[in-house]
Amino acid sequence: MNIVPFESIAIKYKTIFFDAFGVLKNQSGLLPGIDKTFDFLKANGIDFYIITNDASRGPQELSASYQEKGLGQITKSKIISSGMLARNYLKLKVKSGTVAYLGTKESAHYIETLGLKTISIADLNLDNADDISALVVLDDEGFDWNHDLNKAVNLLRRRNIATIVANTDKYYPVEGKEVAIAAGGIANLLEDIVGKQIIRFGKPDAQMFIFAYEHSVKNGGTKDKNKILMVGDTLTTDILGGNKFGLDTVLVLTGNTLASQAEIRIQTKGIIPTYVSESAVIH
Amino acid sequence: MNIVPFESIAIKYKTIFFDAFGVLKNQSGLLPGIDKTFDFLKANGIDFYIITNDASRGPQELSASYQEKGLGQITKSKIISSGMLARNYLKLKVKSGTVAYLGTKESAHYIETLGLKTISIADLNLDNADDISALVVLDDEGFDWNHDLNKAVNLLRRRNIATIVANTDKYYPVEGKEVAIAAGGIANLLEDIVGKQIIRFGKPDAQMFIFAYEHSVKNGGTKDKNKILMVGDTLTTDILGGNKFGLDTVLVLTGNTLASQAEIRIQTKGIIPTYVSESAVIH
Amino acid sequence: MNIVPFESIAIKYKTIFFDAFGVLKNQSGLLPGIDKTFDFLKANGIDFYIITNDASRGPQELSASYQEKGLGQITKSKIISSGMLARNYLKLKVKSGTVAYLGTKESAHYIETLGLKTISIADLNLDNADDISALVVLDDEGFDWNHDLNKAVNLLRRRNIATIVANTDKYYPVEGKEVAIAAGGIANLLEDIVGKQIIRFGKPDAQMFIFAYEHSVKNGGTKDKNKILMVGDTLTTDILGGNKFGLDTVLVLTGNTLASQAEIRIQTKGIIPTYVSESAVIH
Amino acid sequence: MNIVPFESIAIKYKTIFFDAFGVLKNQSGLLPGIDKTFDFLKANGIDFYIITNDASRGPQELSASYQEKGLGQITKSKIISSGMLARNYLKLKVKSGTVAYLGTKESAHYIETLGLKTISIADLNLDNADDISALVVLDDEGFDWNHDLNKAVNLLRRRNIATIVANTDKYYPVEGKEVAIAAGGIANLLEDIVGKQIIRFGKPDAQMFIFAYEHSVKNGGTKDKNKILMVGDTLTTDILGGNKFGLDTVLVLTGNTLASQAEIRIQTKGIIPTYVSESAVIH
Repeated sequence: MNIVPFESIAIKYKTIFFDAFGVLKNQSGLLPGIDKTFDFLKANGIDFYIITNDASRGPQELSASYQEKGLGQITKSKIISSGMLARNYLKLKVKSGTVAYLGTKESAHYIETLGLKTISIADLNLDNADDISALVVLDDEGFDWNHDLNKAVNLLRRRNIATIVANTDKYYPVEGKEVAIAAGGIANLLEDIVGKQIIRFGKPDAQMFIFAYEHSVKNGGTKDKNKILMVGDTLTTDILGGNKFGLDTVLVLTGNTLASQAEIRIQTKGIIPTYVSESAVIH
Repeated sequence: MNIVPFESIAIKYKTIFFDAFGVLKNQSGLLPGIDKTFDFLKANGIDFYIITNDASRGPQELSASYQEKGLGQITKSKIISSGMLARNYLKLKVKSGTVAYLGTKESAHYIETLGLKTISIADLNLDNADDISALVVLDDEGFDWNHDLNKAVNLLRRRNIATIVANTDKYYPVEGKEVAIAAGGIANLLEDIVGKQIIRFGKPDAQMFIFAYEHSVKNGGTKDKNKILMVGDTLTTDILGGNKFGLDTVLVLTGNTLASQAEIRIQTKGIIPTYVSESAVIH
Repeated sequence: MNIVPFESIAIKYKTIFFDAFGVLKNQSGLLPGIDKTFDFLKANGIDFYIITNDASRGPQELSASYQEKGLGQITKSKIISSGMLARNYLKLKVKSGTVAYLGTKESAHYIETLGLKTISIADLNLDNADDISALVVLDDEGFDWNHDLNKAVNLLRRRNIATIVANTDKYYPVEGKEVAIAAGGIANLLEDIVGKQIIRFGKPDAQMFIFAYEHSVKNGGTKDKNKILMVGDTLTTDILGGNKFGLDTVLVLTGNTLASQAEIRIQTKGIIPTYVSESAVIH
Repeated sequence: MNIVPFESIAIKYKTIFFDAFGVLKNQSGLLPGIDKTFDFLKANGIDFYIITNDASRGPQELSASYQEKGLGQITKSKIISSGMLARNYLKLKVKSGTVAYLGTKESAHYIETLGLKTISIADLNLDNADDISALVVLDDEGFDWNHDLNKAVNLLRRRNIATIVANTDKYYPVEGKEVAIAAGGIANLLEDIVGKQIIRFGKPDAQMFIFAYEHSVKNGGTKDKNKILMVGDTLTTDILGGNKFGLDTVLVLTGNTLASQAEIRIQTKGIIPTYVSESAVIH
């Protein structure tokens, strides 16, 4: 496996799509030195977007979390989140009723900006659920799993409503080498128990990449897919999705894929990045 | 679909295996009149066993719950539970260390009778888990799903230990038409997140039926499989398992398979009971 | 289930996306009277596109097959096939080498127009496969399954190359009520045996719908997704994909979903069309 | 990973169950020196059985193939094949009609000894299939996959009959490092297309091990499971099945699991053999 410095790769492209977790930041905060990468991009006239499987907050809050840490270049318009796709879906397909959700009050806020009424599963009375028009899994936090997952199961057995999840990740890293079950893992549980198809938004789905591509082109970015690079730490989401959309891809070893496993995983899964790089940090 | 009275079927067999939930009892207690079925069996010299996917209690406690309700014939020796298989596995394969479990203190008691030390995941310190030699999913109750499922995930990431579940059911009926996620559903979640193979005990696995068959033969029951009938309410566990073991099977419509759905489910899944009967109750 | 005449639905939209098989045609040819539907669209200024999971021929050949049957309005530019996505992928991601394929010589022709070299798996010498840069499943015909599926398996074990299939359908209807295993079913077999991830193009994937949407908008069609209708006979591809992309959807009962099964399937799968109509034929 | 000589393991047990392919033989024939292993067993009074996922021939033919190669100790009574379980199932559950099969004429012979009529799918007229009472997948050879797999699919769509496969292996090694799709892989394809549940016999299913255990005990072997060892080359069948049945297990590195991959596979899958040994050959 040939490991190439990120700088030598990045310089060949006009636009770069970055995954967030495991690429720009980890559970301890921003990767040390990642600000230099953004200086490098600016100096070389390379545009960028952050493509993230995250529905727990809106793009405003997501960009604010970077800006607080000193990455002022990551403005709201640079963020493409799976939550934005879910919100678009609800805007187009749910015209009335109340949207039930699993997540925090804050995660529901971004949906409420559509003018839709929302209710946490925790607050829902199943005997009074005729008004519920959709169920959305927004976050793994903000509800009692013992009680509210069973309630969600029974809501879906009573009412044939669209169910969506805007995070295809099964788990996410927390402290040390530990992980926590993510919204995508919870959606898999619901689907397994209830047997109904959940609508999923997030990488590797092409919709994420097209959404980013169109944002980029609209803001003057290149239309030439051969000049766009996807940078990610996860083969099954970032790299598979980037490849399928026709982009060159680089796997970085700062997140889900450890250096010791990269080669065997690429071989086993048959998901082949264009490049492998230690890190997106440019020194 | 030809629906036949249970009495006319039962009379042709020497031994009958009954599923428990949805056949003998439901969330409201024993099926009204089910005691007459056991009178009928006794009067006709037909032996019986209860084959149940249940690891939340030992056979002593399971039989006691029937006896309290007036079914004195269901003694401890008549119960074949998936928990018994799990206990046998632990007896043979886990010679030392501590067995971690998800479930109630009561569910762990039956394992402790082996002389094994147990610890609830709730009480486990992950930094002090070197002594843990297996993880067992015993019950859906007795622990905090938010906290302890994530803890179980991280235990399995740290320590390569056997993980077993003694309930292949994904959910079980509670009040009204509602259901609750069962231990089998929780095990599916863990397997999906961690990617490791969980060892499962319970119907439709042949091991359950062989266990029951051997108990039955040892107690003087028939060796002729053509003279043994399996009675169940679930195609994918009771009927599939009974068929595969070579028994005649009867689907009853008092539990998971509603009368309105029976024909289409049999057709869709291709799991074909020998008979269909309204109920195991004999009037 | 409320069944609505197609005419009363269609009139509310500016652009209509049609699935082909089971909607416009079946194994006996065009649906009798379907030409009147296209007259109706023209008379009412409604634009249309055919969105089809088909990689066995290019859009030129697909449109010719309609034109020969008298549907002169279905020109090449009205066809959006999964084969076009696969071709785009190869154009962007495969710059050199030879593309191996499972399919007919004709199915490979459309890829060869990229300037790429192709070779049928039937003609491939596995000991001389270093030049192979991708494997594409194009059609279920044109090769010996006994011999060539095993050869494809061993190619994928030897060489870590991208594998793509441009048909997500598992089977397709042939004469009577019979079906034949489709390219998508063959790809599932390869994936099951080899364990590597195959890149799939076709409905319900959003990429198909975006491709159609962009073609439509480029040709002067509406940008308002609420004014676009997806018409299909299959819940898991046409309806799920249309819904997810934010379109209104109509399930027609002339193909994979029989009238007698529609309601239970909608309920079981939780995939909910906006409308149900007997047929896309307008009388 | 601690690799232990097979001799030092074997000496501790009274009965040894061997997988066949990858343990005793490979595509080139018997493993050189494996006859010394059987001399060692005899000299030390250790009993043995061969537990093999094979339905292509009866136990008579399977044992003959060892005897021809000089392993005279492997008599018919030493063979436990998944085909024997399938035959038992048919004996108990199929009392009339004709059994359709995918396989060679020779593979059907073993079933015909039950007195059942059989017909190859190749010879079946679908319009005259009312007499067909079961479908059995016996072998990957002996039929035209293009034609006869589609015929099998349509048989299962027309007639709701039990379908069984007596080989859970997806593929088997042929010459060099190549493999061929096995009967189990073909059954997976049918199940994926038709959506019906296929009844599977073979490791890791407990039924195989119980069948062997009972044969062994009946012939005077030990009843103590702690004194029985399972030897296999495949984690997901031999080792998982042996573990679940309560046996000690040894993974050998002469077949499906290469020495270079053993440790990572054990870790990834969480299937943990009691021992790892280079080979079952004793020098």
